[in-house]
Parts: sequence; C-alpha cells; structure tokens
Amino acid sequence: MTTPNLHRQPAPPLYERIKGTLREGILSGHYAPASLLPSEAALGVQFNASRITVRQALADLQNEGLIFRRHGKGTFVSQPKAFQNVTALQGFAEAMSAQGHAIRNRVLKLRTVPAPTDVSQALQLPSGSPVTELHRVRLLDQLPVSFEVTWLPEALGSIVARADLAARDVFLVLEQDAGVALGHATLAIDAALADHATAAALDTGGGAALLRVERLTHDTQGAPIDFERLYFRGDALQYRLRLDRQVAAHAQSILPLQGTV
Amino acid sequence: MTTPNLHRQPAPPLYERIKGTLREGILSGHYAPASLLPSEAALGVQFNASRITVRQALADLQNEGLIFRRHGKGTFVSQPKAFQNVTALQGFAEAMSAQGHAIRNRVLKLRTVPAPTDVSQALQLPSGSPVTELHRVRLLDQLPVSFEVTWLPEALGSIVARADLAARDVFLVLEQDAGVALGHATLAIDAALADHATAAALDTGGGAALLRVERLTHDTQGAPIDFERLYFRGDALQYRLRLDRQVAAHAQSILPLQGTV
Repeated sequence: MTTPNLHRQPAPPLYERIKGTLREGILSGHYAPASLLPSEAALGVQFNASRITVRQALADLQNEGLIFRRHGKGTFVSQPKAFQNVTALQGFAEAMSAQGHAIRNRVLKLRTVPAPTDVSQALQLPSGSPVTELHRVRLLDQLPVSFEVTWLPEALGSIVARADLAARDVFLVLEQDAGVALGHATLAIDAALADHATAAALDTGGGAALLRVERLTHDTQGAPIDFERLYFRGDALQYRLRLDRQVAAHAQSILPLQGTV
Repeated sequence: MTTPNLHRQPAPPLYERIKGTLREGILSGHYAPASLLPSEAALGVQFNASRITVRQALADLQNEGLIFRRHGKGTFVSQPKAFQNVTALQGFAEAMSAQGHAIRNRVLKLRTVPAPTDVSQALQLPSGSPVTELHRVRLLDQLPVSFEVTWLPEALGSIVARADLAARDVFLVLEQDAGVALGHATLAIDAALADHATAAALDTGGGAALLRVERLTHDTQGAPIDFERLYFRGDALQYRLRLDRQVAAHAQSILPLQGTV
C-alpha cells in the first residue's frame, strides 16, 4: 500500500469529471462570483451526460460551498467567503469591522437561569448557580452568519444586560463597563449539523453544516468568566490562523475543555 | 431590542424541554458514554409526548453529536470526542500520538497531475505545472476520521512517494527524507457537508458535517511547499487552541489564502 501503481488509476466517474471541470472554471474565474452557471440541460449536452449525472456533480459542488441554487432561477457561483483572523482573542464585531464589515446583533433571549452542568463546570460555579444566558444572532453586512449562546456569572451578566447588545461585543462590555481585564480563552472547534432552532435563527435549511466553536474566556488572573457556544454558517465564514513549526515553550500548554463537545 | 423583557419569555416547545433534560442527563453523567438511552416509547411516556416530538428532540441531539443511533439496537450516548491541539504546526500522527492515539493511513491515490488553478496559485507554480497529488484516509485508533488531499511540487512529491505513507506524516517525510526546513502554515477552517467521495472514504452517510481545513505550508524561507485540504468527521474530532487577548505584534499578520474556500 505504500507504493500504489501510479499508472493504473481507474478513470474517474463522469460526475467527477464534470465536477472537476466546473470547479476549475470557478477557481480560474472563467465563471465569475455571482454569475449564473449553464443550465442542467446545457451541461448535459456539453458533457454528454444524463441529467442525474449533472445533478450529482452540482450537488457535490453545492456541498463544498462553491455554488448555490435559487429556486426557479438556476445555479450561481458563490461569493468569496468572509473570514475572521483568529490570531488574538477578539469579539466578532471587533475582528470583522477591522476588515470593513458591518456587524449588528439580534438579541433573541436574555435571562437568568440555573447553570446547566456543563456551564457550571466551565465557569467553576456551584451546580445550579444563577447565570445570565444570552442568545444572539450576529449579522455580517445584514446577513445572519452566527448564532451565539453566552453564559456569564450573574454579577457580570447583570452589567452586560444593561449594555447596547445590538451594537456592542460582550468582550468590550466586559472590559469597558464591568472593568474586567480579559486574559486568554480556550477554543474547541468542530463541525455539526444545524438543529431546528439554529437553522431557524440563521435562516438556513435544516441539515446545514455549521462551524461550531466552544470558547471559555478567562480574566488575566486565570478565572473563567465567559462561556460561549458559537455556531457559524459553514457557507458564510471561515476562521484563519497561522501556525509555526517552532513555538515558544510557554504557548504550548492548552487546558483541556469539557469532554463532550 | 437592547433590553428585551426578561419575564415574558414564552415557554419552550416540548421537544426543547425533552432535549434539555436529556442533554443535562448526558453532560452530568447520569447517562454514561456508550450507554443506551431509554427507548422512544419510554421517553414518550416519561415526558407525556408523542413519538414525533421525542424523535425531533433526539434528532437535534444527534445533530449536535451527543448521541448516535444503531439501527435495530437503539440510541446511545456518544463517547467524548478526540481532539488535536493546534498550537504548533504538526502532522496528524505527530499531534495525536502524543496523546496515546494510534494513527494509520490508507493511501487511496498517489499520482502526478497538472496543477489545478487553485493549487498552482497556492504553490506559486506556473499554471498546469506537474504536481504530486496524494489522497489519504487517516485512521485514528482504527476508525476513519480524516480524508486528506495533498499537493506537492513534483520534485518534493517524488521523494514523498517513496516513503512509507501508511505510517508516516508527510511533514516528517519532508523534514527527514527531503531535508526541508518547515516554517509556518496558514490555515482556513470552515464547515461543509460531505460530498459523495468523502462520505465514502470516511464511512459516513451522505450529508454529514465535516470540519474542513485548507492548509498551506511554507519552508523557513517563506516559500509555499505543501498545499492540503483536510476533511475531518465533525462527530469524531475537534481542534483546540488557545488565544490571548494581548498578542505579540509579529504574530498578528496572516497572509490571505485563496478566496474561494
């Protein structure tokens, strides 16, 4: 298995060839962002393929995020995706406005609840302690891209609850209104399918792919003060970061987060 | 919208309450990892809910990755997810074996191809230059967790092609066999649905959520030498990292990657 024969690869299936040709056309700019692709019928003629085969190629390109469909209008090339640099710990508005994007927030819920087990463990509070729970949809240039649930110890949460949360990041409210010195955060990043509530909040169909981030932020003393779950539309945003082969020793230890997410 | 009424929240729908109770039971350990949950019928009785309502709650928990179903056997609590610390630039085997995991690779394809447009741009090669393309499935403790496509300039790829790729990371082959000094990589991370080939390679159903990583690795001189697309099963692995509020100035600039992925 270490040296497979380089010359006896089977020919790829037809839908793979159609997909490759269209992907190449999109990446090379032959098909420009937001432009209409040829119809399924036209692609069938072009590649001498059945409608089913063309659809399979288009479904794969749609899953990859390279194209999207508008019912009754056809298939279009996706716009380049927005990205957030995650070099430093920043709020979403803080990070994205540096690139010229406009961020607004829809506050869906703001309430005091007994801390669920995972939240009380993360925030190192006694089980069932009151915490402030905040549900927001973040709008990037007026489009919903992120659904975020934030839990704060009640003493901090009551200060955050008085702020203009439609416009301001929680991080900035914590620093400017609550006088907290933010230190570091641990992040756990994975992918999941949208559940009902998240799909509704993000205006995406059920079964959409989400970039899921669990973030536990600490103050400069190392005390956990802000626990969040962020759900980004997989087709709307990417995280970007840089890694070096050689890293300073002090940066190499990451505290484990909770086990289940 | 900045100060929603905290007291007039509507009661959550029944499926949300079932979901919350089960999630709490899983996170608190009342339902242990790998244990069988009560049947849909038993949950219906417990919550005085219809089978459809119970199924909606279970579907959401499955999308979140907290439970999984075995046909004819019932619904089980998921195991804690494996994670990779992404503090330094490391190969998958290098990173995971430090935690006691065993990594093996299935080499699906190894061939020389004319570089697609996005690959030639990333590697700064003339359009259509020959590149080595490597397709691998990475097995974590014998389970497929990642499908990876790697493109290398042919001079490096011909060295990598002679190595034991079932056991060794490409990074280590580049360093040890090709004498390359690895410098840094830029990563773009998002989520997407599995296409046909990836779903087959990862033994996941169609429509599974994938954590998608595009990684461009440079040598210590800053020349791009290795372009990869990594597709992790969203239900099998998470990336973990630490971010600091204050970051050294030299670490703050991230080169933009290609626009479309």
